[in-house]
Amino acid sequence: MGQKVAEFNDYRSIMNERLLRADDKVIRRIFNADANAFTDGALPARTKELMGLVASLVLRCDDCVRYHLIKCRENNVSEQELFEVMGIATLVGGTIVIPHMRRAVEFWDDLEQ
Amino acid sequence: MGQKVAEFNDYRSIMNERLLRADDKVIRRIFNADANAFTDGALPARTKELMGLVASLVLRCDDCVRYHLIKCRENNVSEQELFEVMGIATLVGGTIVIPHMRRAVEFWDDLEQ
Amino acid sequence: MGQKVAEFNDYRSIMNERLLRADDKVIRRIFNADANAFTDGALPARTKELMGLVASLVLRCDDCVRYHLIKCRENNVSEQELFEVMGIATLVGGTIVIPHMRRAVEFWDDLEQ
Amino acid sequence: MGQKVAEFNDYRSIMNERLLRADDKVIRRIFNADANAFTDGALPARTKELMGLVASLVLRCDDCVRYHLIKCRENNVSEQELFEVMGIATLVGGTIVIPHMRRAVEFWDDLEQ
Amino acid sequence: MGQKVAEFNDYRSIMNERLLRADDKVIRRIFNADANAFTDGALPARTKELMGLVASLVLRCDDCVRYHLIKCRENNVSEQELFEVMGIATLVGGTIVIPHMRRAVEFWDDLEQ
Amino acid sequence: MGQKVAEFNDYRSIMNERLLRADDKVIRRIFNADANAFTDGALPARTKELMGLVASLVLRCDDCVRYHLIKCRENNVSEQELFEVMGIATLVGGTIVIPHMRRAVEFWDDLEQ
Repeated sequence: MGQKVAEFNDYRSIMNERLLRADDKVIRRIFNADANAFTDGALPARTKELMGLVASLVLRCDDCVRYHLIKCRENNVSEQELFEVMGIATLVGGTIVIPHMRRAVEFWDDLEQ
Repeated sequence: MGQKVAEFNDYRSIMNERLLRADDKVIRRIFNADANAFTDGALPARTKELMGLVASLVLRCDDCVRYHLIKCRENNVSEQELFEVMGIATLVGGTIVIPHMRRAVEFWDDLEQ
Repeated sequence: MGQKVAEFNDYRSIMNERLLRADDKVIRRIFNADANAFTDGALPARTKELMGLVASLVLRCDDCVRYHLIKCRENNVSEQELFEVMGIATLVGGTIVIPHMRRAVEFWDDLEQ
Repeated sequence: MGQKVAEFNDYRSIMNERLLRADDKVIRRIFNADANAFTDGALPARTKELMGLVASLVLRCDDCVRYHLIKCRENNVSEQELFEVMGIATLVGGTIVIPHMRRAVEFWDDLEQ
Repeated sequence: MGQKVAEFNDYRSIMNERLLRADDKVIRRIFNADANAFTDGALPARTKELMGLVASLVLRCDDCVRYHLIKCRENNVSEQELFEVMGIATLVGGTIVIPHMRRAVEFWDDLEQ
Repeated sequence: MGQKVAEFNDYRSIMNERLLRADDKVIRRIFNADANAFTDGALPARTKELMGLVASLVLRCDDCVRYHLIKCRENNVSEQELFEVMGIATLVGGTIVIPHMRRAVEFWDDLEQ
């Protein structure tokens, strides 16, 4: 795990804790639904993580992409699978997805260190 | 197959033919890439159709959703799987996805007729 | 209440019932959070409906706009207030919001019948 | 000029009049800036209409596309030029632009009648 | 006021001055409309700043969020109110808003120093 | 050419090489279509670069904006033309484009060094 991944994880957990400490009912419920969405069901968790990655790419949310890349790695997604996901995202979402794809691959490589 | 599906298919094929008749190099290449993207690779075509559906839902493109619903049905996606896909799309993309989810289910039911 | 409002309400309640009948855990939780978000808290429900309207306008979701227009009317939002909300939404979201503003006013006038 | 164009123009002018009658300061200023933006300057009005069309396509606003198609026609934009504009918009904005491209060509053909 | 706020304000005012020095008619008018939009009218300026914040959050524009956070603080918006605004924005705009919510809270805390 | 431009070019070419090394069919085709889209046709390459810039601005993709700014400079786009493009983009896309306009001008000035 490289430096970019470590920084991402640190900032994310510090700020999530800060967010949840405020104890807003709606925000708590959204975090709750999120924790439940990417678990095994009719579709396996692995497929759901791939779908979370596609959604994050076409909506161009770098931090969301990073989070799902970590989860995809945990689910043994291969590099070839990653590129097929990114190809579909860039096709559907357009060449404006390309800069996010560059940063995704950089983070992916950082995950391997 | 209900009336909504028939109308969608008719309009789509008439207008795609009109678009391609103009023979624009860039548009032809995009259609070409599109035809190649949703085929078996490291990931099976079925998973790619689910990803196409998620991308279309979060980007809120009703016609794209309809196209991928047809393809999902051809790939024997179950209703339970469909709802898990729509749940993730609405969670990631927000409640603004809900009206598109309503129209998606209406079209899905029309596909069953 | 005019015809557009009646049709909107009918379709919305039929399809929401259809959606919830599928009993997907994530979708149910999102609907649940939604029902809780626009109630009195530190901010009054009326202000939250205005914020729901702004969010729906800049994200250009006609059905979401229509829903919040109904709620704004129930909360005695005046026409002048409505136009100030739409002015801010069009300024922040750009002239692409204008077609949605046209449809919003048409629906608003239909609500008055 | 076909029926779709006539209906578009009628609805647009009726609702714009309704919007401006409310006399909201911010909305009036936005309409004002809009009237001034697409005139000859360092760039000719024709090029600006092409840019308005590209922006409307990638932001997927059908009514905005229709308005700029009318203006492009008035500025003698050729069909070949139109398709090059649509190709760039679909490449940059992704295949989710395709359904809007279909409707754009349908409207363009209606303009020719 | 912490360092992040100071840097934001410095960069913003230097670059706004640079933008306006070019004296483009359309850009000047937009800045003008912007200055007029968030003042007391039928709705108080405070409510309009909350709406500006919601719009910026769902459109995921960090710099716009920061600007409206400064204005909200000047209008004595409380932390509890802020979280209710962020809850609605994340519900309507989806979990892709969460990373922007993290950065918003970090900036808000920096404003308090 | 200033430091920001050099860093942008370096990162872009290193990561594009990394992306293409993976040899994904869909990604390769998209890069291919991209290389073909901004060449002389019915419309001159210069006009197409202006359209690429407008599309990138309204879709708020800073890296895409930077790329087209480099190309616009190579095509002798003047500062006055640039501001007219940015004015249209901000009008159509809304004030959320302003932060991207600030960064665009900063990069443009860096290109001149």
